Amino acid sequence: MSAPTIYLINCYTLSSTSQFDLAMPKPLILLIVFAVLTIPAYAQWPAADAQRLEERIKTLATHGANADGGVDRVAYSQADLDGRAYVRQLMEDAGLEVRVDAGGNIIGRRAGSDPDAKPIMFGSHIDSVPGGGNYDGPAGVLTALEVIELFNQAEHTTRHPLDMIVFSNEEGGLVGSLALTGKLRDSALDVVSHSGLTIAEGTEAIGGNLENLEQDQLHPGDLEAFVELHIEQGAVLDNNGINIGVVEGIVGIGWWDVTLTGIANHAGTTPMYLRDDAMLAAAELTIAVNEAATSRPGGQVATVGRIQAFPGAPNVIPGRVEMSLEIRDLDQTVIDEIFVEIQRRAAAITTRSGVTIEFAPVDVASQPAPTDSRVQAVIANAAEQLGLSHRLMPSGAGHDAQDMVAIAPTGMIFVPSQDGLSHTPREFTSAEDLANGANVLLSTIAAIDDGALQTTTEAE
Amino acid sequence: MSAPTIYLINCYTLSSTSQFDLAMPKPLILLIVFAVLTIPAYAQWPAADAQRLEERIKTLATHGANADGGVDRVAYSQADLDGRAYVRQLMEDAGLEVRVDAGGNIIGRRAGSDPDAKPIMFGSHIDSVPGGGNYDGPAGVLTALEVIELFNQAEHTTRHPLDMIVFSNEEGGLVGSLALTGKLRDSALDVVSHSGLTIAEGTEAIGGNLENLEQDQLHPGDLEAFVELHIEQGAVLDNNGINIGVVEGIVGIGWWDVTLTGIANHAGTTPMYLRDDAMLAAAELTIAVNEAATSRPGGQVATVGRIQAFPGAPNVIPGRVEMSLEIRDLDQTVIDEIFVEIQRRAAAITTRSGVTIEFAPVDVASQPAPTDSRVQAVIANAAEQLGLSHRLMPSGAGHDAQDMVAIAPTGMIFVPSQDGLSHTPREFTSAEDLANGANVLLSTIAAIDDGALQTTTEAE
Repeated sequence: MSAPTIYLINCYTLSSTSQFDLAMPKPLILLIVFAVLTIPAYAQWPAADAQRLEERIKTLATHGANADGGVDRVAYSQADLDGRAYVRQLMEDAGLEVRVDAGGNIIGRRAGSDPDAKPIMFGSHIDSVPGGGNYDGPAGVLTALEVIELFNQAEHTTRHPLDMIVFSNEEGGLVGSLALTGKLRDSALDVVSHSGLTIAEGTEAIGGNLENLEQDQLHPGDLEAFVELHIEQGAVLDNNGINIGVVEGIVGIGWWDVTLTGIANHAGTTPMYLRDDAMLAAAELTIAVNEAATSRPGGQVATVGRIQAFPGAPNVIPGRVEMSLEIRDLDQTVIDEIFVEIQRRAAAITTRSGVTIEFAPVDVASQPAPTDSRVQAVIANAAEQLGLSHRLMPSGAGHDAQDMVAIAPTGMIFVPSQDGLSHTPREFTSAEDLANGANVLLSTIAAIDDGALQTTTEAE
Repeated sequence: MSAPTIYLINCYTLSSTSQFDLAMPKPLILLIVFAVLTIPAYAQWPAADAQRLEERIKTLATHGANADGGVDRVAYSQADLDGRAYVRQLMEDAGLEVRVDAGGNIIGRRAGSDPDAKPIMFGSHIDSVPGGGNYDGPAGVLTALEVIELFNQAEHTTRHPLDMIVFSNEEGGLVGSLALTGKLRDSALDVVSHSGLTIAEGTEAIGGNLENLEQDQLHPGDLEAFVELHIEQGAVLDNNGINIGVVEGIVGIGWWDVTLTGIANHAGTTPMYLRDDAMLAAAELTIAVNEAATSRPGGQVATVGRIQAFPGAPNVIPGRVEMSLEIRDLDQTVIDEIFVEIQRRAAAITTRSGVTIEFAPVDVASQPAPTDSRVQAVIANAAEQLGLSHRLMPSGAGHDAQDMVAIAPTGMIFVPSQDGLSHTPREFTSAEDLANGANVLLSTIAAIDDGALQTTTEAE
């Protein structure tokens, strides 16, 4: 394998006169001139237009705007239809050849010069959770469009066709990417979405055609690469003042419904020593879950997010508690080991308290989806050459990219979320951070178009 | 003060031939004959009829019977009306002069011989919780009736009038005893009961008359004594094989709504070290509540019976948890001290976790209601003389007796609850235990009628 390709900072920055100090020594000037003369074509792009990006974010946010400054643009709703129409028009204005595929994804093609080259796909989604924010999804879609705009501005034809994609119904279960990769189950079609429509009805409502799912499906080898930019939805970048997250992979999720069974009894007449208190056992288990996740190095997380005690009266010792358990990590082995540790501690709680504890796995669990190490390296190098700080990190949230991993070399770029907030109207990413992300995405797509995946090995 | 009156075992037992062994030494026989000749009139009663008691329990249980073998005989319902009619008929058949007072209590008077003697009141309630059992309340009412039957059988006229009482709507907030003692608040009248009627409407529906509340009110000094027999509703007697509980008092109740406030966040993207997890803090607080109650000697109890995490999704770190806190003890100082200790531990949790914890007192709290120590002694002596094992114990549950404490020397007799179960169709007390309780109640009433409260000092 050859050494990693070296990417220089882009031409737009280099040509800024403030960068050149005529007092600098001649050998340095000569080195810079040499560098400029030898940088490959893909690095010579104009910088992303932060103002344009922010204006488009704001316009898209008018579709489904709620009183709190966020959006209720759930998939298949009128707001979703309006938002899709707005983005589609922008895509067409940017010269893309736009279609809606069988799964309701909007795909805009920018033709390449090599008829044998496979498409490079990039994009995200525009649907939101109820009461969502303005960046989760749109950041990735509008930076993808920015990349198209910048290629247009540079009047550059890539070798590979470029497919900008707006996935359908990401928040309701990654529907568009599952459909595109042939993994959408029949049973999912009958699920009623927040819009009130089933996923089948909703997909048809946005222009999809379920009869053509198989025909439109992508298979391994069909794409040169897939790249998604997304806001981090966590506080790691923001807290550490880092510009770009290079996503190692999307964590796997283990999910259990936990039932603790003791004996419900009168809270006044039952002495402490005669209680089989399911709530006390649930408290001990919640602490055990936390300790199992924090007592080993690594980025694994474990959460009790839902709990209910039965019968649920202040004057009755709970005889039953139902709670959720979720464990996430990039490594399925780690998820399994933490679960075993939690079960071990649960058995000790049962021995101590007489309260039995059952764990029922829930079907929504997903396997870890590591991204392609070469794409990671390309993204990291792009950030490096743009003078942006960056770090490798997992994605704790699910994304369409996790489905694309199965059929294409896949990468993800994270931009900071202020205070780590997401799925709330208070979600925010600055225009500068969005522009940084668009620049990294542009350099990444250009590098991949230039064959970077053939020559790049691994992330540092 | 004079020494405690000595009560001998009752005549019915003494006259059983099996008790007399003619081979016993003469001095012992002489002693027994002397004892029999000198026992006061109140000890010469026939024993309670266990079969009659059980049959009446079963017949009363037909009014409001549910499919699980228990009753839905909530106050003011048709089942309650039917049950009251059944009991009232039994009271009239036993020769009582029966009326319904302003608060809807059924009171049956058995006249005494002394026109200046104050009434001795005893009884309990027959209304149930939804899905209740057949003994909580009826045990006290039907043993009270048994006492009347046994006085009738002995053709004995007490010096004091006897008032057997069936309190109205005990389970819905001690309505009858609050009304009788002048403590029923106007605001309580508008509360909608399980029957669908307000307490005002319900009281009128069972024959009460709210306009006469003041006129029918009892004041301190109006009664010679009040005694209530009840099932324990706990497992202390049953677990320890003890026949009779001599109730020291009804515990006070402190009740708080607790709100824990952290920061809701994505359970996947928020590292463990960046969390302000309100659920984890709630778990630590639940354990602190338990430790605060169990780390000191005494019978105090503390319970978290209700809990809810918000937003309550498995994939969101709870930003808020609401839970209940209840502390009970016979001594208000102990309740206060335990609450202070819980607050101290809560402050430490806040320091550690960043999760704030607020305690809002709830209005349903009640003060401890100690029973009269002389009545305790009379009950203990009655049990002793009947050859029944007994122990002093608190009542962890609320009872009409706690209101009566304010206006009369009050006592409570507990009989065992199998496995401590109550407020469930599985609630059970054997006919033998009911008969034991009736015998103790009879001896107690007879002793009080004989002036025991004037000569008795304290419980052992």
